[in-house]
Amino acid sequence: MDNKSDVVIIGGVAAGPKTGATLARRRPDLKITLFQKEEHLSYGTCGMPYFASGDINSFDDLLITSYDIPRNAEFFRKSKGFEAVTGTEVIALNRERKSVTVKTLATGETREHGYKKLILATGSNPVPSPFPVPDSPKVRPFTRPDDAIKFRQLAQTGQVGKVVIVGGGFIGCEMAEACTALWGMETVLVEKETQLLPYVLDTEMSRLVEREMLRNDIKLHLGETVEKIELNPDDNPVVTLAGGDKIAADFVFLCLGVRPEVTLAREAGLELGETGGILVDLTMQTSDPDIYAGGDCVESLNLISHKRFYIPMGSLANRHGRVIAENIAGRETEFKGAVGAFMIKAFDLNIGSVGLSERAAEKADLTARAVWASFPDKPDYYPESKTFTLKMIYDPESGRLLGLQAVGGGDICRRIDVFSSYLLREAAVDDLLDFEPGYAPPYAEAIDPLHHLAGIADAVRRGIDFVCPGTDGYDDDNITWLDVREPDEQETHPWPCGNHQKLVKITLNDLRDHLDELDKKAQIMIVCRRGPRSYQSAIILKDAGFEKVSIISGGTQASL
Amino acid sequence: MDNKSDVVIIGGVAAGPKTGATLARRRPDLKITLFQKEEHLSYGTCGMPYFASGDINSFDDLLITSYDIPRNAEFFRKSKGFEAVTGTEVIALNRERKSVTVKTLATGETREHGYKKLILATGSNPVPSPFPVPDSPKVRPFTRPDDAIKFRQLAQTGQVGKVVIVGGGFIGCEMAEACTALWGMETVLVEKETQLLPYVLDTEMSRLVEREMLRNDIKLHLGETVEKIELNPDDNPVVTLAGGDKIAADFVFLCLGVRPEVTLAREAGLELGETGGILVDLTMQTSDPDIYAGGDCVESLNLISHKRFYIPMGSLANRHGRVIAENIAGRETEFKGAVGAFMIKAFDLNIGSVGLSERAAEKADLTARAVWASFPDKPDYYPESKTFTLKMIYDPESGRLLGLQAVGGGDICRRIDVFSSYLLREAAVDDLLDFEPGYAPPYAEAIDPLHHLAGIADAVRRGIDFVCPGTDGYDDDNITWLDVREPDEQETHPWPCGNHQKLVKITLNDLRDHLDELDKKAQIMIVCRRGPRSYQSAIILKDAGFEKVSIISGGTQASL
Repeated sequence: MDNKSDVVIIGGVAAGPKTGATLARRRPDLKITLFQKEEHLSYGTCGMPYFASGDINSFDDLLITSYDIPRNAEFFRKSKGFEAVTGTEVIALNRERKSVTVKTLATGETREHGYKKLILATGSNPVPSPFPVPDSPKVRPFTRPDDAIKFRQLAQTGQVGKVVIVGGGFIGCEMAEACTALWGMETVLVEKETQLLPYVLDTEMSRLVEREMLRNDIKLHLGETVEKIELNPDDNPVVTLAGGDKIAADFVFLCLGVRPEVTLAREAGLELGETGGILVDLTMQTSDPDIYAGGDCVESLNLISHKRFYIPMGSLANRHGRVIAENIAGRETEFKGAVGAFMIKAFDLNIGSVGLSERAAEKADLTARAVWASFPDKPDYYPESKTFTLKMIYDPESGRLLGLQAVGGGDICRRIDVFSSYLLREAAVDDLLDFEPGYAPPYAEAIDPLHHLAGIADAVRRGIDFVCPGTDGYDDDNITWLDVREPDEQETHPWPCGNHQKLVKITLNDLRDHLDELDKKAQIMIVCRRGPRSYQSAIILKDAGFEKVSIISGGTQASL
Repeated sequence: MDNKSDVVIIGGVAAGPKTGATLARRRPDLKITLFQKEEHLSYGTCGMPYFASGDINSFDDLLITSYDIPRNAEFFRKSKGFEAVTGTEVIALNRERKSVTVKTLATGETREHGYKKLILATGSNPVPSPFPVPDSPKVRPFTRPDDAIKFRQLAQTGQVGKVVIVGGGFIGCEMAEACTALWGMETVLVEKETQLLPYVLDTEMSRLVEREMLRNDIKLHLGETVEKIELNPDDNPVVTLAGGDKIAADFVFLCLGVRPEVTLAREAGLELGETGGILVDLTMQTSDPDIYAGGDCVESLNLISHKRFYIPMGSLANRHGRVIAENIAGRETEFKGAVGAFMIKAFDLNIGSVGLSERAAEKADLTARAVWASFPDKPDYYPESKTFTLKMIYDPESGRLLGLQAVGGGDICRRIDVFSSYLLREAAVDDLLDFEPGYAPPYAEAIDPLHHLAGIADAVRRGIDFVCPGTDGYDDDNITWLDVREPDEQETHPWPCGNHQKLVKITLNDLRDHLDELDKKAQIMIVCRRGPRSYQSAIILKDAGFEKVSIISGGTQASL
């Protein structure tokens, strides 16, 4: 073997370059070589939807450092201290010889390159379509720079009037906004689950996102599967749904998710995990002690369910890179796993999720209970206060926190981040009561939403019945709705009352004096705008001997 | 005694009403009475600067619920289930008789009112001025609703052209912005310490705030004390500084801080703490088991220094209220203390602090070391990305986290809140590496600032020398400044180089090839925009055998 490095890294973008840069700092004596198939070595993958949308002007912005230097091979050699070679595909991994077979794409030549330690950062690929898809530039996934660049070129011509997006996950939702808000396209989104973002939100929280999508004229086909996509005689795609409906469009995005790229690892006999990602230990080492793996090609331990899961995230890939570099440099360092923290923007909504959804908790055989509430993100008196809804999932027996979902306006990322830190320490509901947030009116209310959620969980423990917003038993006959809002609120957002149901309007302030208007035996469901007035009303009713009293969690904010 | 309640609460605003409301929910059977001297029962105290500034339209906005109902006695009786009596001053506390003496302010009549449990929520008062102050409506503190209302009335007349603010703490800084930005007044701020916000920021971090104040035409007199304030013949105030300088103004704000109001407690022989606040145990019980205290009148345990401190905050007052109510309702609940989390807005800057400052840590005899860095709050490619600077304080031996300070644009509250949760669990620097934030380009960079800070602390441990921004040894002769920024950055924000100092400009990308331009024996101080390039450069120099290499922490962002 003529070519040889101490460390060979396969794959660019995030985990690979991060490993190389960190390792070169720790061990400048090592010869490190990174092979990347694509032209671009390292780019802000997660920024691609914002380039496609036009929010970000030039694709180059995703390729440069904050001081405008391109992150190319020269940059990695000169600034970061390791070699990066683009246009080269590693086509085989020869573990016995401790070498990789490298093919130069321009010439087709292959050569062998030896390693002492190898890092697999081979990333992910789009999940293949389960339905027939024509080979067309107008039917594309959205995972590679080329996907973003080609779409934007097409969008700029003005020839894309209507788009169909198949898949309502992160990329699907981001692209829906990009197409509608920035390009003014007619957008149709098809998702096989009966909700958007099924892996991070529970159904009732996703309803808030769907509401926002509909407000922005996105047509949603939820719970519908695609049977096939064909091209019509004009070479424009037509999507046929399982029910037979056909949707003609100028462009189709296949946002079906990604799966780990593990061809090399599998062919070389490295152990794969149950989700299909490369199996690594806490030091990111594969089943071969001289081979590490990180980024989107590995699977991780879910720190809440204690099961393995696949979580392709740029933020985790960077952490993998550091851990691999430290271990190769001789300092044992661990990546313990992930709780799963996500953020996504959809029009004016901020959406976040951390830990397990209620459904995921049930799937993991955990006992889960949920509470919801709506909040202003600042005191109501402060200008530009916005509203968001939180859902907290926890184990009702031990009180252990399991997850948080957040949808609305204002600073949601903060709630997700703080909750994430509590999940990481395996905290319980009551631990939230000791949380001490930074408080001032431009930033927060005096009582933190997490304190409120802990308070509601405590109320649940004391027998107060909070029902899920928008779903539980709203349609039951013989319900008496008790709307305790002020008359102007009732008028602006009237509470929908079913045919066989009764609606009684008494403001919280008047409730104690008007209890005789309510039937003590009836099933009473109390609603206000966000929740606190309903809670107070429930206490008043319970104290007065009412027996069947429930509260609509999160109020009209979470339901209407 | 004709009058008697199960529970008597002295004081409105936050802790008192919160105790009453929570207790009435837990124990509707109890008779609860709250006495409040002022007309207003419960208001958003912290919102007062924003009313004074005009940001908030009407003072009533601070007095109403989110659904526009005034929080008056009727509201507390009808909605919350307890009695609140305004215009009544409790003038004596008779512990043996378990009663308070109540004076009706309108009539001057007094009567006795019995209690089984008593709650002191007597709040705070302005610290008395240590210099002579005339009795004038134009020389006022800013602590009570009346202060805000009167100032706003005056401001609206347009007669206040120039304001002097004495005290550069929270209220002083908030009022400086209110006067300048919204009323266009000429504003002078006098602070006896040589920096702003001395209790929450260290000097070098406060410089960033001072820079923003100066940019907004606020005149700062730091490190100067007031000798006296007099009225000139026009009845307008004149402030004389210790040096003899006189500043004539139309209005003077005395923002000298607050101290606990403990007259009743002291006269009744309750134990006070070393900071002057009422001493309470973990259940908020005073030295008399039938008396609890909460809110701005108590002192707290600092969970970092383990010393007692005085921390008057509306957010803590609410937590005190809940703890008191739970304990009286029969469920033992603790308020363990506080780490001290603060936020304040000053023009376009967000400012936050949690835990101990470096100075406070030293005062508490803790070994402290600090690291700094500047960050974009989102990826640089994302539109409207802003920059902030963080300072982290920790114990270099155990790694235990001690505090975080943040100044800049973007979402700073999130960093403070997350760090607060880590302080509360007594975490160490390396624990931050496992933090898993919610990540998406509209909200965050792929690598969290707290991961970076932990990385810098690790680099310090490995012998890399990061120096304090703006202060350490900048003036030393014989320094060689190494500016590794790109030429356009160097031009826009040139690095100031002293007379006896040398300035060498080599970009990071060129550094490896131009090491011969630097003297291996010289003291080299490296600067870039935020820090990472300097760090990388330092590694290159060290690896090349340079011995005396230091990094300007936080780059030009934190220094210029």
